Amino acid sequence: MQNLQELSEKAKLVRKWCLISTTEAASGHPTSCLSAADVTTVLFDKYFSYDIKDPHSLFNDRFVLSKGHASPLLYSLFGVAGAYPLEELKTLRKFGSRFEGHPTPKFVFSEAATGSLGQGLSVGAGLAVVGKREGLPYKTYVLCGDGELAEGQVWEAANFASHFQLDNLIAILDINRLGQSQPTMFGHDVQKYVDRFTSFGFEVLSIDGHNLTEIDEALDRATKNNNGKPFAIVAKTMKGKGISFIENKDSWHGKPLNKQELEKALAELGDINDGLQFNLKEPSKQKQNNSSASQSQKAAKFEAPAMGKEIATREIFGKVLAELANDNDAIYAVDADVMNSTFSEDFLKAHPNRFIEGYIAEQNMVSVAAALSRLQKIPFVATFAAFFTRAADQVRMARVGEANIKFVGSHVGVAIGEDGPSQMGLEDIAMFGCIPDSVVFQPCDAVSAAKLIPHMITHTGISYMRTLRSKTPVIYDNSEEISIGGSKILRQSADDVLTIAASGVTVAEALKAADELEKENINVRIVDCYSIKPIDKNTLSKCVQETKKKILITVEDHFEHGGLGDFVIAALSDTGTKIIKMAVTKISQSGTKDELLSDAGIDASHIIAAVKEAAK
Amino acid sequence: MQNLQELSEKAKLVRKWCLISTTEAASGHPTSCLSAADVTTVLFDKYFSYDIKDPHSLFNDRFVLSKGHASPLLYSLFGVAGAYPLEELKTLRKFGSRFEGHPTPKFVFSEAATGSLGQGLSVGAGLAVVGKREGLPYKTYVLCGDGELAEGQVWEAANFASHFQLDNLIAILDINRLGQSQPTMFGHDVQKYVDRFTSFGFEVLSIDGHNLTEIDEALDRATKNNNGKPFAIVAKTMKGKGISFIENKDSWHGKPLNKQELEKALAELGDINDGLQFNLKEPSKQKQNNSSASQSQKAAKFEAPAMGKEIATREIFGKVLAELANDNDAIYAVDADVMNSTFSEDFLKAHPNRFIEGYIAEQNMVSVAAALSRLQKIPFVATFAAFFTRAADQVRMARVGEANIKFVGSHVGVAIGEDGPSQMGLEDIAMFGCIPDSVVFQPCDAVSAAKLIPHMITHTGISYMRTLRSKTPVIYDNSEEISIGGSKILRQSADDVLTIAASGVTVAEALKAADELEKENINVRIVDCYSIKPIDKNTLSKCVQETKKKILITVEDHFEHGGLGDFVIAALSDTGTKIIKMAVTKISQSGTKDELLSDAGIDASHIIAAVKEAAK
Repeated sequence: MQNLQELSEKAKLVRKWCLISTTEAASGHPTSCLSAADVTTVLFDKYFSYDIKDPHSLFNDRFVLSKGHASPLLYSLFGVAGAYPLEELKTLRKFGSRFEGHPTPKFVFSEAATGSLGQGLSVGAGLAVVGKREGLPYKTYVLCGDGELAEGQVWEAANFASHFQLDNLIAILDINRLGQSQPTMFGHDVQKYVDRFTSFGFEVLSIDGHNLTEIDEALDRATKNNNGKPFAIVAKTMKGKGISFIENKDSWHGKPLNKQELEKALAELGDINDGLQFNLKEPSKQKQNNSSASQSQKAAKFEAPAMGKEIATREIFGKVLAELANDNDAIYAVDADVMNSTFSEDFLKAHPNRFIEGYIAEQNMVSVAAALSRLQKIPFVATFAAFFTRAADQVRMARVGEANIKFVGSHVGVAIGEDGPSQMGLEDIAMFGCIPDSVVFQPCDAVSAAKLIPHMITHTGISYMRTLRSKTPVIYDNSEEISIGGSKILRQSADDVLTIAASGVTVAEALKAADELEKENINVRIVDCYSIKPIDKNTLSKCVQETKKKILITVEDHFEHGGLGDFVIAALSDTGTKIIKMAVTKISQSGTKDELLSDAGIDASHIIAAVKEAAK
Repeated sequence: MQNLQELSEKAKLVRKWCLISTTEAASGHPTSCLSAADVTTVLFDKYFSYDIKDPHSLFNDRFVLSKGHASPLLYSLFGVAGAYPLEELKTLRKFGSRFEGHPTPKFVFSEAATGSLGQGLSVGAGLAVVGKREGLPYKTYVLCGDGELAEGQVWEAANFASHFQLDNLIAILDINRLGQSQPTMFGHDVQKYVDRFTSFGFEVLSIDGHNLTEIDEALDRATKNNNGKPFAIVAKTMKGKGISFIENKDSWHGKPLNKQELEKALAELGDINDGLQFNLKEPSKQKQNNSSASQSQKAAKFEAPAMGKEIATREIFGKVLAELANDNDAIYAVDADVMNSTFSEDFLKAHPNRFIEGYIAEQNMVSVAAALSRLQKIPFVATFAAFFTRAADQVRMARVGEANIKFVGSHVGVAIGEDGPSQMGLEDIAMFGCIPDSVVFQPCDAVSAAKLIPHMITHTGISYMRTLRSKTPVIYDNSEEISIGGSKILRQSADDVLTIAASGVTVAEALKAADELEKENINVRIVDCYSIKPIDKNTLSKCVQETKKKILITVEDHFEHGGLGDFVIAALSDTGTKIIKMAVTKISQSGTKDELLSDAGIDASHIIAAVKEAAK
């Protein structure tokens, strides 16, 4: 083993800059950095293979800081690795700095945005599973705090990692005993963690996280591990380690030293050479044998169904994606034990090596997708729309991390029928629509659904498509142009009294209503808003201008707030249009699709009544 | 042990009605019911203490069906227990029936709405922890599926249960091997589950889930268990058990028998006496010794701060709640290791027996609160607003379950400053606002915040209050009337040009803007919308009528979609008002509060510019 003295010196250098930067910022979490300074120093100096000039290289080892509040540690590590002058760390947490309070993509060396706890092991597992699938030689290291191990997602990730035999994944658990408001559940009882990770299928080693020799031996074992098990190093550490007056002390979470305390602390550290650098290793660029990569077979060409045919929008999703993936190796699909409902099973059949079964663990699934995005993949994540709420925080963090992920949520609205309210996606437009720069689609037929999928691939960022459980008639010819921000006027006449904006299952209801109304000489204009965000403001404005009354009715199978209606109202808020929002305003129940659409007040008969009332 | 023959007969009766009801419904999950029919039959017949005439009795044992898709099992069990004629099960999944596809409050015997998987153990832990805290003698049984054990929340609940030594909690794990789309991660390798639950601090027993003697012995041990550990019975079972042609077969998830198959199945079961009933035990009404209940001490009276004083809205929350809880035993507080940030620590100090520390596990925390609500408690759940997204699905299910829970989310918006985007609550109004019948508040000062808390207590259902990290000046006198659906005109004149609707941190910005504008002889009306849902439509309409221009500007520290602006626009959508929405449209960064409010375009200077532009 190399000079212990030098390693110790480098760890002091890391500590120094964690302290300086947070004191300069007058906020931050120095004590949470110091507990992990030793283990990460040994990692970076002796094991980490990384081309500091090419942080996006697919051959680099990966370091995921799950405990994102220890960001000054991350910044110090890459600083000592030579990525930038350490002096730059004095901009920590300042407006415009790449060194934010918690890591974001502004810091290009970060594998993910973290800071919402318990997500990093999933990100690491996502990086590791692609390494395995594609024969990439890198190792993935994840530094977790102890407090965050209470998050269930950690255990979703642990199951996932052992199930997929990710022995290229190394979790480093920084057991520093103290949470934010009090000691963690288990304090320094490290055996609790050893037992848990062992039972979840990890190879586990417990060490003194400040003994450089023990750390080195653990990392040596971990990096050589190839027994099919992910590895966990349980490191017993002290929060604030290395500075006497904060070490293992209560009430020092999220608290920087003041200037005097900093001076005292730096004096304790002693003279340190700021010119010290980590000896990063050159990454191997040798792809490993990858027998499974050749499993892919061309999916059949998707044949657009003929107009009038009844087919559920969810049904075509897997087939279209499988076909598009024939010529695009970046496309992956991820599911949560519902591939026979979301139809991502059609993707699995053609491209098994690019299908990831996430089992019933939606949080992990989404963070795995964020990792795929980091590796320049294009992940499609599918489950019931309702169950994306289970991963709302992970979706949020994916957006903070500028991830490029496509979500497909099936079984939306009360129209799913008998399964009842727990299975109805009724808040998904609000959830995905709220995300800056996101795109939200809801096709009403199979052809428009099929045509929206390529748009999801070309759009960069978060996009979301709602799909329907029940079959709907194909109303578009395959030559129809379907675009992001587009819509389609399905029905119009010279004397339309008002406009109805519908989407998904309510399109057919609106058309039925129009048929009935026509018999009474009431003509209405119908617009299919398959693109909910962005909404087609121009077409809707034009429709309102051209109808007798400046009235627009929106009708949707989604809760009242945050759905299609609100996008339409917001878009037309400067036009003086009177807008009537028809949406779901209560918790639904079990019943047939038609009973529930009626009960929710969004079926043809309610549309007819609303039109008649408005047309008075 | 009692007549095995009779128990077996009763289990057959349960099976019979699981099959009949799902065939009648032509949908549902009979095979998922059959795997657990034996273990639940023994439970109900030999161990379950329950007053079938008083399902809300606090002394009843609790049965939580975590695998909610097995609802016909739940309905059959209570049917055989005599709660209603079994014939009524033929209404399963039909419109208006209390027997919904997944349990909802229409079925009064259900302890929670389930159907989003992996939540039941948390509900059970919530029920059990109150049992412990209040000395109630009941046992809580939770039936979990195996597929759902992949959900991280299960492990949050497991940690919680062992940490709080809930030896009155018994988890029954129905390991039937098959998920929806394929076998579960571990199939019939029950040892995997034994190891996991053992490592998480449970007393664990593994049994053949169809051997009535083994079941009986396990339940006997579990109910006698008082070693401080929660108990888990790992039952190896067969999906579809008891009917030869579906037992342990693939592709039978969520599939009812057709009529012919049903006939065949009933023939296999043989003649069964529909008159058989479970021998429910009389619940003990003896409260156990409860030394900790007396710990409560009166919290000091909250003294409203004087006008002009600077205080953060989050700071007063704990003090006010603690005071209100002096005279209301039903109030509980739940937190997730941030009590020193949300200030629920002030509640803990006064009422330790009614404070539940959930550690960093937001999903479990919310489902525990749903259990508290079931027990007629009034739980206040507090964490950073951003981290409620972690429990969006649990909040959704709480609403399906008609739970009465009050949420308080601190650290909202870009105004939190240096911590950066991962910690900013910017989608919380959309999330909570979307929920039917919810109430959403955002006070701008400590007095209005204090006055909104009693409204949260009296309102039944889901209410939510956003609180601010930074201090804001007190602008209300303590005599001010603050109401649900109210607002306050803070500034008006005879010649106001337009109206600005603000909330929370933007109130001060709007007032600053008004001061500046006044110097240029531009008067604006300012409304503090502390009640976001319901929004004060009348006051806002009136303001718009009274200002020179029919223009209203909304300004908020929340993402553009789904926030205050959309509530205002929707409320005024029939008034022809031009509404300009100022909100956060991008991911923010680290910086000072003022830098970030400016960067987001929602500070005083941007308001001034918007007013001048609109006033042209």
